[in-house]
Parts: sequence; C-alpha cells; structure tokens
Amino acid sequence: MAPSTPYLAVDLERMQANIARAAEAATARGIALRPHAKTHKTIEIGRMQVAAGAHGLTVATIGEAEAFAAAGLDDLFIAFPLWIDGKRAARLSHLVAAGAAISMGVDSVEGAERMARAGLAGRVGARVEVDVGHHRSGCAPERAGDVAVAAARAGIDVEGVFAFPGHAYAPDARAEAARQEAAGLRAAADAMRSAGLEPMVVSGGSTPSFAAALEIDSPVTELRPGVSVFGDAQQWELGTIDPTAIALTAHATVVSHAGGRMVLDAGSKVLGPDRAAWASGHGRLLDHPEARIAQLSEHHAVVELPGELPPLGSRVRVVPNHVCMAVNLVDELHVFDRGDDELPSTRWRVAARGRND
Amino acid sequence: MAPSTPYLAVDLERMQANIARAAEAATARGIALRPHAKTHKTIEIGRMQVAAGAHGLTVATIGEAEAFAAAGLDDLFIAFPLWIDGKRAARLSHLVAAGAAISMGVDSVEGAERMARAGLAGRVGARVEVDVGHHRSGCAPERAGDVAVAAARAGIDVEGVFAFPGHAYAPDARAEAARQEAAGLRAAADAMRSAGLEPMVVSGGSTPSFAAALEIDSPVTELRPGVSVFGDAQQWELGTIDPTAIALTAHATVVSHAGGRMVLDAGSKVLGPDRAAWASGHGRLLDHPEARIAQLSEHHAVVELPGELPPLGSRVRVVPNHVCMAVNLVDELHVFDRGDDELPSTRWRVAARGRND
Repeated sequence: MAPSTPYLAVDLERMQANIARAAEAATARGIALRPHAKTHKTIEIGRMQVAAGAHGLTVATIGEAEAFAAAGLDDLFIAFPLWIDGKRAARLSHLVAAGAAISMGVDSVEGAERMARAGLAGRVGARVEVDVGHHRSGCAPERAGDVAVAAARAGIDVEGVFAFPGHAYAPDARAEAARQEAAGLRAAADAMRSAGLEPMVVSGGSTPSFAAALEIDSPVTELRPGVSVFGDAQQWELGTIDPTAIALTAHATVVSHAGGRMVLDAGSKVLGPDRAAWASGHGRLLDHPEARIAQLSEHHAVVELPGELPPLGSRVRVVPNHVCMAVNLVDELHVFDRGDDELPSTRWRVAARGRND
Repeated sequence: MAPSTPYLAVDLERMQANIARAAEAATARGIALRPHAKTHKTIEIGRMQVAAGAHGLTVATIGEAEAFAAAGLDDLFIAFPLWIDGKRAARLSHLVAAGAAISMGVDSVEGAERMARAGLAGRVGARVEVDVGHHRSGCAPERAGDVAVAAARAGIDVEGVFAFPGHAYAPDARAEAARQEAAGLRAAADAMRSAGLEPMVVSGGSTPSFAAALEIDSPVTELRPGVSVFGDAQQWELGTIDPTAIALTAHATVVSHAGGRMVLDAGSKVLGPDRAAWASGHGRLLDHPEARIAQLSEHHAVVELPGELPPLGSRVRVVPNHVCMAVNLVDELHVFDRGDDELPSTRWRVAARGRND
C-alpha cells in the first residue's frame, strides 16, 4: 500500500542521473567535487555521491559529521566557522581518533587561536572562509592571509580557502556570483601566498553558481553544490535545473476544494516555509506547472489552478521551494525506483536530520 | 555543562504562567480551552495544560493524535479536514478502540460521506469547518448545515462547527478577525440549527484573536490557541504577548563578527524560516530588542546591532518568528526552571515531532 500522505518521495532514477551529471561535469574540468550533504542528510545518498567520484562530503555541523563518519563516510569538511569549546573539541577529536579526516571553517584570528588552544592542532585541518559577496560569515579575501598565518603559527594545518556564493540564489545572479566567487577566492589565495602559505584547496560552492564556475577562468580546485542532487522549485524557477530532473517531491492528497481552490494536506511542516521574494509561490506542482501555491500553513497548501480541479482524494506531487529544509523535516525518505511507480521500493532514514549542533 | 548551541530552551516559570493565564481567561468567561498541541508536540506540556483546566487538546494530524493518546492525553480534536482512506480509518478506529475520544474536521459533503463509508460512524465525531476569512479550508458558513446534514444522515455524530481565523496574524487585524470569526461561527451554527441539528461545540482559534474573542459578543463555546503557551517573535511584534512572557528561545553562540555584524550559529534549521511580510526580521533577540536579524541561512543568523557587539563565543537568546516551526525541528526541548538559570533541569522529548500524516 502507498504510504499515507504527506511524505517525501525520491525519484531514484532522476537522482542518480543528477549525481552522475555533477560528477562528470566537475571531473571533466579537473575539479574535485565535495557535495554538501546537508541537503540530503542520508547515508545511502552520500555513498552514491562518493561512488560517483566525490572527494568526500561537505557538512554544516559536527552532528552531521558524526552521522556520516559513523557510516564510514569520513572525509569531511565542516563548512562553518565553528566556535570551539571543550565539548566541540572533544567531539572532533573523537572523530579524528576513529580515523576521520576532518577540516573546518575559520574566519577570524580568534577562531583560529581558539582551535589550537582547544587541542585541535595536528588533528583537524582549517580552511579560511572568505566573503565573496553573500555577506554572511567569512573574512574579507585580503584578510585571508592574516587568519591563515594565525592558524599556522598555532600549529593548525591550513588547507586553503573557501567561500559560499549564496547571492547566486536570485534571478540572473548566477554568472555574476560565480565571477565574484572566482575573484574573491583568487584574492584570498594570493593573500595566503603573500603570507608564505600555499593553499592546497580553493573551494567554491552553491548549486546555482556551479555550472558558471566551471565555465569561467576560476582558481577553484573544489566545488560543493548541495541542492543539485534533488533540485527544487527555487532551482526550477532560477533556471538551474529542468523540472524533468527534479528528484524529490512531497506526495500530497487533495483534501478540500474550499473557495474553488485546491487544498492539499502538505504544508510548511513537510515542504518547509522558505519563500524567496522572487518565488512564484510556496513551491510548485511537478505535474501542473501552471499551478501556484498561493498560501501555505503548517498542514495546508492552497493551490490556484486554472480549469477543472483534480478531484478530492487525488494525489499530487509538490516540489518544495528549498529541498534542504523539506528533508530536514522528515525522518525518512520514500524511494521510488522511477517517479511514476505506484509504490516505493524502500525507505531511507534521514540519518543526520536535526543534527544542528 | 550547558548543552552545545544551538538548542531550544524552555523557560518553565514563564510557560507555566502562560498556561495559567490562558486557562483563567477562558474559564472566567465560561469558555472551554482546547489548546492546539501542534505548537509544543510535547507530552509534559500537554499534561500541564490539561491539569490547568484544558478540556482536551487540539491536534493537526492523526500522527499527533497517536502520540498524545499513547500518553493518556486522549480527548482530542483533529482540526483538519482529513481525507479518510483505509489506512487513516484503521488508525482512527484503533485510537477509539483504545478509549480515546476523537473528533475531526470536515468541510465537504464528500468528506463527510467518506468518513461514514470508511466505517467511522459511531466512532469518530465530526465538526464542520467553516471559512471565516482566512480562506484556507472550510466551507462557507451558510453551507455548514448541508455538510452537517450529510454527515448526520451517514450516521456521524456532528458535534458542531469550528473555524481558524488565521487572518488575525497581521498588524491590527486581531479585533476584526475575532469579529469575523464570531459572525461566521454564528452563521454556521444557525445554518446547522436551521437544518435541525444543534451544535454542541462552536469552536474558534488562534493566539492573536484569543483575547479579542473573549471580549466581544461571540457564540464560541471553545477556543484553541496554540502559540500562546510559548509566545514568539510574531506575537511580540503583533503586540499579543509581552517579551517578558516569551517562554521559548534558541540559545546560540556568536561565531563571527564578519562585516561588523554578529553571526550566530542558529539558522533556519533551528529557528524555522518563517518570515511574514510585516516582520522586522528573521526573529528577535530576547535580551537585545534593538537588534535585527537581517539574514538567515540554514545555520547562520546575521544580526545587526547598534553599538558594541557581544564578543565571539558569547551566548545569546533568539526568539523564533514562529515557534511551532522551531519546535518541530528539534528532538528535545531543554527545560530551564527559570530563564536565567545556567543549566537546564531536564529535557523533554518532542514526542510528536515530524508526525505529519
């Protein structure tokens, strides 16, 4: 019997094609791929990415690192400027003692010195985070040398520099964000070299900027796309992924025709409430591209759809706006070998769900 | 040792005061309180609400009903127009057979007839959902009689009518939404009576409209506020709750001062990404009311704060915009007897987390 709605369904055939496509594109240009596993948080998917050629995984938290390392996926970069206290140092040391190769982000001299004081020198590598235009964490590119030197003086192995061009998440922003990423990372790598340190890794990121980063003259040696494994409505609307490649949907039931609209039993607690200012609505319907999700509550999606509405009790496939948020809401993914199969062939546990710390 | 950030912290003293305040306000006007447990999803909190006088709990899904019923909190209203299939009918029947008193929402003749065909007549009660202005699910108030009659003819016990005035979630909208709720529910109750059925329950909802609904001439016999148990940044900014009563925060660490702003390790995967158009930002800082969360990613909050920034490594308390979304992201709540205690006294499991179906 099909599971009760709402649930998240993976289209295995599409997902495997997405994994292969990203790996081939990077390999063809001699770029290492280190996919961001925060998107799927799932061991089985991480294994497929590594089998397809990924040089390890990216994670956002120590908890995610623990979940993947426990399954043997233990070449991990924590792309976050962790503030190291005794508990975090102990957890990282434990991972390394068990054989994991771990590096983490650092964006300040204080952060680098703290890593060393907590006993992580010689155990956990560091990559200096630089801000290339997203204006979140990350030091200015020209300051990367100072941070790297502070870390190196404290005995930390400084692997290189990294950035996240999150400002690529906007219409027509991808190419310019990729250019800014390349320029910022080049300046950061130069700053390290001027300080007498050679960056072994120059790491960029983001699904929307991925293709552009491969096309331009860029210093990146590694890329960290996350969302591309599934795609989502944001990438569909940005033009980064074709809807025929979207590999994750929420299966939902039409429960009401109130007000002449279609009300689904999938709300923000399974789709995630993300809605960028430029989004057409709160997600899309995979099989009804003309539909708009006009209103989203925790357990309701209100859909405007021209013409006759699907009857009450019908099932529809909803594409979340931001798939990373949707996956983090559920304990398991239902895996369909092909998207139009009636029944899932298996379920995967979202092993790193909720691992925020 | 304090838990590693980010985590959700409950201020027990404040929460108990919020529970008592809501119970007293309703009781003083002879209104039954049936708090919406989707906000907290936690057995311990549901028990406190019932001990304070709540006439059972409201839930949104069968899964939530199962979680609370398993702990003996089994007088439950599922405030959603469930589409009953064989699996859902079996789960509801199982709950009732184990002694639970369950009623559910219905907003169409088809939905009512389907309940009966699935064998729920005599087992699960129904309340007719009407739309009083939020325009989500719910039939027009004047159609409540038709739906009620269809259900009653099919043998379903029709307890009454209910509405959710979600349009109260906007600045200066509370009083008008409460008036519309009263008018819509009165029309719906009248439609039932005209059809020869007496509504035993006339149920309204929502934290922002709660106080207004108690003050005006309203037909409600029951109210279902959810958020008021904790409060959140939305209610703070709507003026529904004073910041001194907010009982849930995310404890976060300052990890970066990049760009002269304060970057915290609490992002949308612990705060929830909800941001209403009228919100000042992506949440508030309980101890820095002048701060604004200008940017939110999955694991970063970027805070603009005039004056000197708290040093790297400081801990701050973040009030999520929409607390129901935050709680549903974590597996447990850390309970502090008083908000300024250094260590939690216990942890509560978020027993119904992720129970979407």
